[in-house]
Amino acid sequence: MEKKRSISMAVIKRLPKYYRYLRELDKNEVDRISSKELSERIGFTASQIRQDLNCFGDFGQQGYGYNVKELLYQISVILGLNKEYNTVIIGAGNIGQAIANYTTFDKMAFNLKGIFDVNVKLIGLKIRDIEIRDMDELDGFLQREKINIAIICVPKNRAQGVADVVTKNGVKGIWNFAPIDLKVSEDVIVENVHLNESLMTLSYLLNEREKEEEFL
Amino acid sequence: MEKKRSISMAVIKRLPKYYRYLRELDKNEVDRISSKELSERIGFTASQIRQDLNCFGDFGQQGYGYNVKELLYQISVILGLNKEYNTVIIGAGNIGQAIANYTTFDKMAFNLKGIFDVNVKLIGLKIRDIEIRDMDELDGFLQREKINIAIICVPKNRAQGVADVVTKNGVKGIWNFAPIDLKVSEDVIVENVHLNESLMTLSYLLNEREKEEEFL
Repeated sequence: MEKKRSISMAVIKRLPKYYRYLRELDKNEVDRISSKELSERIGFTASQIRQDLNCFGDFGQQGYGYNVKELLYQISVILGLNKEYNTVIIGAGNIGQAIANYTTFDKMAFNLKGIFDVNVKLIGLKIRDIEIRDMDELDGFLQREKINIAIICVPKNRAQGVADVVTKNGVKGIWNFAPIDLKVSEDVIVENVHLNESLMTLSYLLNEREKEEEFL
Repeated sequence: MEKKRSISMAVIKRLPKYYRYLRELDKNEVDRISSKELSERIGFTASQIRQDLNCFGDFGQQGYGYNVKELLYQISVILGLNKEYNTVIIGAGNIGQAIANYTTFDKMAFNLKGIFDVNVKLIGLKIRDIEIRDMDELDGFLQREKINIAIICVPKNRAQGVADVVTKNGVKGIWNFAPIDLKVSEDVIVENVHLNESLMTLSYLLNEREKEEEFL
């Protein structure tokens, strides 16, 4: 595939949703689906769906619709899910442990290679057969195990330091759960999960809704 | 404040970030800040910042900048963080436990009132002094404790059923961690945290970056 710079983040953010719905359809042995039917399930307009999928290639066929298996496969390739990624979790607190136990991972070819923490009470314990290691071992481990993705679950004030260490050791992708914006060089991708921001969005929308109701 | 329908989700999603940066400034005893300085920290353009904050009122002053404490307070009110919310967690698995242990909650006036699960091994255990209860008790509990927000951490195939129960019992906000799109009536707000979609976005961007490098 050619280099395509023009695909907006909005389209990219919708791709996993297409993937999820198509996988569901495929599981239910649906062979093909029109953009209209897909629209009814997924909640985007049919024209939006056609436009989105056109960004990546010519998947649909007039009057036939989309071949579910084919489209699912193509989207999985676009999402890079056919690749293997080696990951580590840094910070084995609540969130870190939850992520380590998150089995969806394995299905998606993210190989969890190691878990790291500074807490001596945790070091040596295992989560799903993976030992929690001392942070001191991180440096060498990252290079030896060719880690591509670091999952940062440490407290806010330690997150930037961790990001510096992992990126110095070849990590190109960070899944960041710490509530800060990490500063990294341009060739590193950071995807944030900021739980408190999500909760504030909910709070905002609830509050707005209440004000509307008072207004009525 | 009047009812303002026109504020886009993009602006709303940026508000928690303003809140976070302003709180940090306030902690560091910074009294006032220009949109230019704020821009350098937060990474939005100064004009974007002025435009965003204008959606909610007239906060800045030409030549003076923003009063940090005042702006922080106003944004917290806009976000509804001056309100109290009663919440329950449904599903005390990995994610549910992590969220229950998530202390940021308390700081934000989300009162965790109960945790529910179907697993008899979990029922009766406590997380931060809150007992895990049998799902059978959920119905009555929601009404008795005036629960506003339900945090859904059950498996995918049980999430819609849980959403139906909580909304029937007066819950108006759902923080959903299950990897499905819940169907709820229009007066209910759903905020999703879809971890697998976030991970796929990271995977996509990493994969694109690699392709670019091959191309160079």
